[in-house]
Amino acid sequence: MASTIFVQSSFPSKCLNKSLNTHFLPSYKLHDSLSFKPRIAFQKRFPVRAGLIEPDGGKLVDLHVAEPERELKKREAASLPRVKITRIDLQWVHVLSEGWASPLTGFMRESEFLQTLHFNSFRLGDGSFVNMSVPIVLAIDDSQKERIGESNRVTLVDSDDNPVAILTDIEIYKHPKEERIARTWGTTAPGLPYVEETITNAGNWLIGGDLEVIEPIKYHDGLDRFRLSPVELRQEFERRNADAVFAFQLRNPVHNGHALLMTDTRRRLLEMGYKNPILLLHPLGGYTKADDVPLSWRMKQHEKVLEDGVLDPETTVVSIFPSPMHYAGPTEVQWHAKARINAGANFYIVGRDPAGMGHPIEKRDLYDANHGKKVLSMAPGLERLNILPFRVAAYDQTQGKMAFFEPSRAQDFLFISGTKMRTLAKNKENPPNGFMCPGGWKVLVEYYDSLTSSNNGRIHEPIPA
Amino acid sequence: MASTIFVQSSFPSKCLNKSLNTHFLPSYKLHDSLSFKPRIAFQKRFPVRAGLIEPDGGKLVDLHVAEPERELKKREAASLPRVKITRIDLQWVHVLSEGWASPLTGFMRESEFLQTLHFNSFRLGDGSFVNMSVPIVLAIDDSQKERIGESNRVTLVDSDDNPVAILTDIEIYKHPKEERIARTWGTTAPGLPYVEETITNAGNWLIGGDLEVIEPIKYHDGLDRFRLSPVELRQEFERRNADAVFAFQLRNPVHNGHALLMTDTRRRLLEMGYKNPILLLHPLGGYTKADDVPLSWRMKQHEKVLEDGVLDPETTVVSIFPSPMHYAGPTEVQWHAKARINAGANFYIVGRDPAGMGHPIEKRDLYDANHGKKVLSMAPGLERLNILPFRVAAYDQTQGKMAFFEPSRAQDFLFISGTKMRTLAKNKENPPNGFMCPGGWKVLVEYYDSLTSSNNGRIHEPIPA
Repeated sequence: MASTIFVQSSFPSKCLNKSLNTHFLPSYKLHDSLSFKPRIAFQKRFPVRAGLIEPDGGKLVDLHVAEPERELKKREAASLPRVKITRIDLQWVHVLSEGWASPLTGFMRESEFLQTLHFNSFRLGDGSFVNMSVPIVLAIDDSQKERIGESNRVTLVDSDDNPVAILTDIEIYKHPKEERIARTWGTTAPGLPYVEETITNAGNWLIGGDLEVIEPIKYHDGLDRFRLSPVELRQEFERRNADAVFAFQLRNPVHNGHALLMTDTRRRLLEMGYKNPILLLHPLGGYTKADDVPLSWRMKQHEKVLEDGVLDPETTVVSIFPSPMHYAGPTEVQWHAKARINAGANFYIVGRDPAGMGHPIEKRDLYDANHGKKVLSMAPGLERLNILPFRVAAYDQTQGKMAFFEPSRAQDFLFISGTKMRTLAKNKENPPNGFMCPGGWKVLVEYYDSLTSSNNGRIHEPIPA
Repeated sequence: MASTIFVQSSFPSKCLNKSLNTHFLPSYKLHDSLSFKPRIAFQKRFPVRAGLIEPDGGKLVDLHVAEPERELKKREAASLPRVKITRIDLQWVHVLSEGWASPLTGFMRESEFLQTLHFNSFRLGDGSFVNMSVPIVLAIDDSQKERIGESNRVTLVDSDDNPVAILTDIEIYKHPKEERIARTWGTTAPGLPYVEETITNAGNWLIGGDLEVIEPIKYHDGLDRFRLSPVELRQEFERRNADAVFAFQLRNPVHNGHALLMTDTRRRLLEMGYKNPILLLHPLGGYTKADDVPLSWRMKQHEKVLEDGVLDPETTVVSIFPSPMHYAGPTEVQWHAKARINAGANFYIVGRDPAGMGHPIEKRDLYDANHGKKVLSMAPGLERLNILPFRVAAYDQTQGKMAFFEPSRAQDFLFISGTKMRTLAKNKENPPNGFMCPGGWKVLVEYYDSLTSSNNGRIHEPIPA
């Protein structure tokens, strides 16, 4: 798959970028004195400037111990108090180590935690802001806290007791679980997947500090080669002479509506004067909830989409974003966007209800479907990122393919929801021709088939009639 | 009382102010790349600059209809759809009308509401931030929404159907109650006073727009003369040639510990080189919860404190802050501070657990007692304000007076909590000599006595043994 995707492009070597203090969203009515910089329309030309977008804080954080020092660090790690971390904690170590959260250099101390909870951003020494909307924190319990005692450094070990990293200059502070949940998700209702997985039964303390990661994090699941770091992605974009990078975050199979949107975005960027816009197709690879399609199957599906020529490998980079998923809607979409700035993206495609889900106990969506893109367009520290709102695509029955929805002939369009798509795949039925490339659909059917067989004929979810 | 308080000072006419990009709090450990500007100690000299601190957005908002136009506006008001507002809504109209929330010019539209919920601040057109941490919103129900129909303007009427204001260029949007509560209070537990009073039974829509307030809001309770607007306060500070204004927010009776703190703050400001620091003693006058001492009694108590010479009337301005109380801890303390910038204060005294209360259903404080001052020191838009942390005062039994607590001789100090103070006053007992001036204490005893008699011998709260 890598060879399919990473094709050397033949564009001129001088790479250009455009400036960026603009958003594509329509402006909102504000009290006059509060008006933002006007958002500009897609037609507007950007002033040209050289190079990829700068990472937050000016330089990418790299928290890996240099190779010559690794043995020394391992010996030190063996002598320090140990904190056993979970699989999701490990994913955050991975995220931090590669600088996705630049300029953050480790698990948050209290001052950073409070800024994230209250302001979704950090103020830097020069008075500027970087966005940081989800708490990246490490919980410990009373007995772990006691074992740490007065030590200023601890070793983080994985489930097999292998040392992963040293956390230095540590700060231990109270874990205000209820407040963290309320301010991050805007609800405290029971049943939030990330909360149940990582917070409810977690310890009553948080431990912050600077990370020294002993070796690059690998998962040995056959997909590590797709886990490009921000540095590697930037190198790839430079190698391709990208003059615009547009990121598409996803945690679902790609259908032809998504493909249409991505292709159309590239077309519009070309119209704007960019010479070589590159798509970063960036599936989320960390923790997802039980009823999402697992990463390995999604990657197989994405591979087929590339192979079937639905997206152009010459102008597309597929890579895995190692972050776990919060399902925290407008709060989390900021994290998804901010991390992609660090990976070199200066355009971010945002859909309806990004990172949203159903309310865990009420019959409604947890978030207003439009709040995600609105909040994203107003978020401190994301001013440099161009926000591209998702245009709604649906199945056009007159053309027999996915097309942008036209309200004037609404009756021609068929909306195929995620639930509907899953139901069809589970029942081994086919969607309308042109909804998804046949190779990609086959992967989905195989996935649900594997679930059925591994459960002796019972599948995880009931299929609606 | 006004004449007691507003005494012409004899300080030189050239008024000076000092610059301000500093906080008095100790610096917090941050990841290196995230370090703030260093906080400076009290001894540090500030560069001198002229005039009072600028209001947020550069100029104070005044939403009153000019007198010559009032009759016209009243006639227009009679022709528009009506929205009946509550007592607390009216307090917010008052707050908005005088510019305490500058640069906000009316009840929030959705973009402002979302910025407040997620970022506790607004980004202005020039890229700078002003703080705005509590939603100032107006709820309407389905039938009110229907009555408004397509109108672009509505008239707000009080409980007697008198027109109060016209809301123009309106925007009606969904009232996400659960999310508003979670993000403002950090909990959704039942029993939050402001929530029960104004949100739980409020309508499912919010209506934002610009306010045209027909006449200045008056309450006719004998206290209107103490409700100085930010403009009037600024005039008073200018008249007194203040070169520093330090604000003390309170909603409780003043005891000698408070007085010590305020006197000591002035002494320290003088040491720093200010020639005429003026104290703004600024009791909150809007909605408070049932077991707080009502405003009228608090004002009587404050008057006695001034009369008894505990605070110096020459250097003290007592005025009423018209805002309702949220009891939202670290979120609300930002509002309390921001509003005082607009009133001309460049120093703000912050105590332990500001705007906090007990958790409504758990046996603990709702907020960490230190989060308020930490959040305040990091809040976007409050960089210009100097934060003065509250030093803890207690009753020193060796001196027979309130003094700053010294941990080295902890056994000499007696802490008299608010609950203890109320219990003593209810039981008509006296606190230790020197805890509160006798005149002030008498007012408190009278207040609880009035409660007892109006309840036929039963009082509102049980008295702990």
